[in-house]
Amino acid sequence: MSGFVKETLPRIETLDVIKQALNFPWEVKKQKGDLLAAVGKRLAEDVYASENYPPFSRSTRDGYAVRAIDTLGASQTSPSFLEVIGEIQMGIIPDIEITEGTAALIYTGAALPKGADAVVMVEYTSALQNTLEIRKPVQRGENVIIRGEDVEKGKLLLKKNSLFDFRSASLLSGLGIVQVKVIDLSIGVISTGDEIVPEDTPVIEPGKVRDSNSTMIAALLMREGYGVKKYGIARDDIEDLMRMTIKAMEENDVVILSGGSSVSSRDFTLDVMNNIGEPGLVVRGLNISPGKPTLVGGNRENQKLVIGLPGHPLSCSVVMLTFVLPLLSSLSGAEEDSIWKKRISLPAGKDIYGRSGVEEFIPAVVDEEVVNPSMAKSGFVSALQSADGLVRLPEDKETIRKGEFVEVWLW
Amino acid sequence: MSGFVKETLPRIETLDVIKQALNFPWEVKKQKGDLLAAVGKRLAEDVYASENYPPFSRSTRDGYAVRAIDTLGASQTSPSFLEVIGEIQMGIIPDIEITEGTAALIYTGAALPKGADAVVMVEYTSALQNTLEIRKPVQRGENVIIRGEDVEKGKLLLKKNSLFDFRSASLLSGLGIVQVKVIDLSIGVISTGDEIVPEDTPVIEPGKVRDSNSTMIAALLMREGYGVKKYGIARDDIEDLMRMTIKAMEENDVVILSGGSSVSSRDFTLDVMNNIGEPGLVVRGLNISPGKPTLVGGNRENQKLVIGLPGHPLSCSVVMLTFVLPLLSSLSGAEEDSIWKKRISLPAGKDIYGRSGVEEFIPAVVDEEVVNPSMAKSGFVSALQSADGLVRLPEDKETIRKGEFVEVWLW
Repeated sequence: MSGFVKETLPRIETLDVIKQALNFPWEVKKQKGDLLAAVGKRLAEDVYASENYPPFSRSTRDGYAVRAIDTLGASQTSPSFLEVIGEIQMGIIPDIEITEGTAALIYTGAALPKGADAVVMVEYTSALQNTLEIRKPVQRGENVIIRGEDVEKGKLLLKKNSLFDFRSASLLSGLGIVQVKVIDLSIGVISTGDEIVPEDTPVIEPGKVRDSNSTMIAALLMREGYGVKKYGIARDDIEDLMRMTIKAMEENDVVILSGGSSVSSRDFTLDVMNNIGEPGLVVRGLNISPGKPTLVGGNRENQKLVIGLPGHPLSCSVVMLTFVLPLLSSLSGAEEDSIWKKRISLPAGKDIYGRSGVEEFIPAVVDEEVVNPSMAKSGFVSALQSADGLVRLPEDKETIRKGEFVEVWLW
Repeated sequence: MSGFVKETLPRIETLDVIKQALNFPWEVKKQKGDLLAAVGKRLAEDVYASENYPPFSRSTRDGYAVRAIDTLGASQTSPSFLEVIGEIQMGIIPDIEITEGTAALIYTGAALPKGADAVVMVEYTSALQNTLEIRKPVQRGENVIIRGEDVEKGKLLLKKNSLFDFRSASLLSGLGIVQVKVIDLSIGVISTGDEIVPEDTPVIEPGKVRDSNSTMIAALLMREGYGVKKYGIARDDIEDLMRMTIKAMEENDVVILSGGSSVSSRDFTLDVMNNIGEPGLVVRGLNISPGKPTLVGGNRENQKLVIGLPGHPLSCSVVMLTFVLPLLSSLSGAEEDSIWKKRISLPAGKDIYGRSGVEEFIPAVVDEEVVNPSMAKSGFVSALQSADGLVRLPEDKETIRKGEFVEVWLW
């Protein structure tokens, strides 16, 4: 019964212990490509601005370029009147200059003419021949963007390890950066346990359970921008498990053994951890619930990380989200993980009961302005689907009272 | 100046107008494949449970299978003592029966033996030979899942059009459903405007702007599970734009024209909308800010949808998130869009000023337990990146006071 977990470490401290023991960060393979190929992947390096943006001052509205001072006090009942001296063409440097009492028709995105410091939106104007009526004053800088106001040259735009998304694509393409390097980390997933049967097994016999975790793990890692390969199911047999683990270690940077949390499977996973080189097993239990029987080991020299995850679907996904994803970020040298950006605070809709002395994660439903624990039991295959995220109860917190703010990690 | 928007419709009403005018839902291409191929795509049909789950009652903990009544009143100082009559093997129907005063060692996932109705976690027990000491009582059903308790046969598991993610993968693989049909909707993206230059232009001349929107649109559509093809930049020339639009319509279900929001470009987009068959132009303005100059049209018979988006990066992304994504869902017959699942309510950290009479979306930063408007101007290329989502001010709301709850749409 050596598999029962007696020693556990706090989650955050564990990340540090592993970092030290395995000598993170490791040199991870990189792939260079265009922006759309990078969508959904993780940046392999920091990205900096190579120019000021915008490179020229321009209008953000359809309207009239003016000197703000000329619109002072304009109103519906007492409009200002200016002379329209021309129309700014798109895509050229305007040769018009706005002087006292004059204005020029301008479109969204067009370069601001000399002398102008604001744009009056067309809605607040009427034009009759060359006379412009303005019914609302503008401030200096209103409806325009000044050169360099948005992004200064040399500014850190995107951090290493951040997930590249539509916002990153928008930012970089606007600044003329059209190629980026992304992390090419490969992860092998092995299911373990005599009770596990392939997920396409039509009828499962009593005592058996379909291998849903490896698909869940693979899908989550794909969402997080990693490459994944599934290796199938290893029997509770040290040779079978060792053979598959070695193959997966040869072909990947990281190997995840899923399901080895029942005492017997866990013992085999422990044996494997002791046969993968130095330092082998590093962590034999996390002080989180669910997810305690998590194992972590590795080979420092060959830069291979091996993780043993609990078999419960919920435990498995809690450990993946709250521990494995940050661990993979740490491996490649990032200070924090993007998953931690999905944390918000919401008031509890009812009392949430926990235990003190252990960090707990409870599936939760966000309902209007509050968060409530989900009704699903931890072994439910529907536990993830029926929740919006996890509520976190820190180690020193036993119960969250109704109305008290609580940390919510959205999926 | 026909391009200045004079007529606008509320966003939600507009979705209905288009649905009627174009006779949604349309028959969309489907692709059948395995679960990992479906990750990040949208389901083409509802998915129902084909069996009860779990098919047998089982333990969710390592510990001892017991009759809950036999643990009544057990405590640290006054434990209950039971006789251990065996160990439940994984993967088989146990032949042991738990009767009064007896218990059996059981592992996570193992089938519950006859007579047992709960499992005592190993942490609260000590075993000496065949005598088990129990220091904490359990309730009936504690640490076990009863047959069919999780999912009943015939239950709706996942709705048509929902984004397939790691949670869906976990649920379906656990229930033995390993193939699904996903929507194969293809979208062509064309940038328009003489002021637009390719995104890889190293130095942009005054009055020009890089084509960042089409990459942003493509990246967002990819995240939402759609297929995207970029067609490059059309000049402000009706023949050029018409030729490219027709080609894109032939090759895709949906065509998005981006940038046609300056008055001149918008006029060309309007001309195109009037030349794509019946009914042609359906919507010539949305009552949202930013995003008003949005155009929607289509060809009902050939089932082609054409959308003209404003050119501002922020306006463009606001319309994409709040209008185009729900519109694409409506096209394929879904009642609501997954993007609407990312709405939460948070108290405003400061007063947020809006205008009454228009639905407004303001980039916002979630900061601890409150939400604040982001400082970025709407024309900034950094506007999306520097925010966590959008705050929504409904049409009838002018100002949100500090502390008042406001709707936040997370990216």
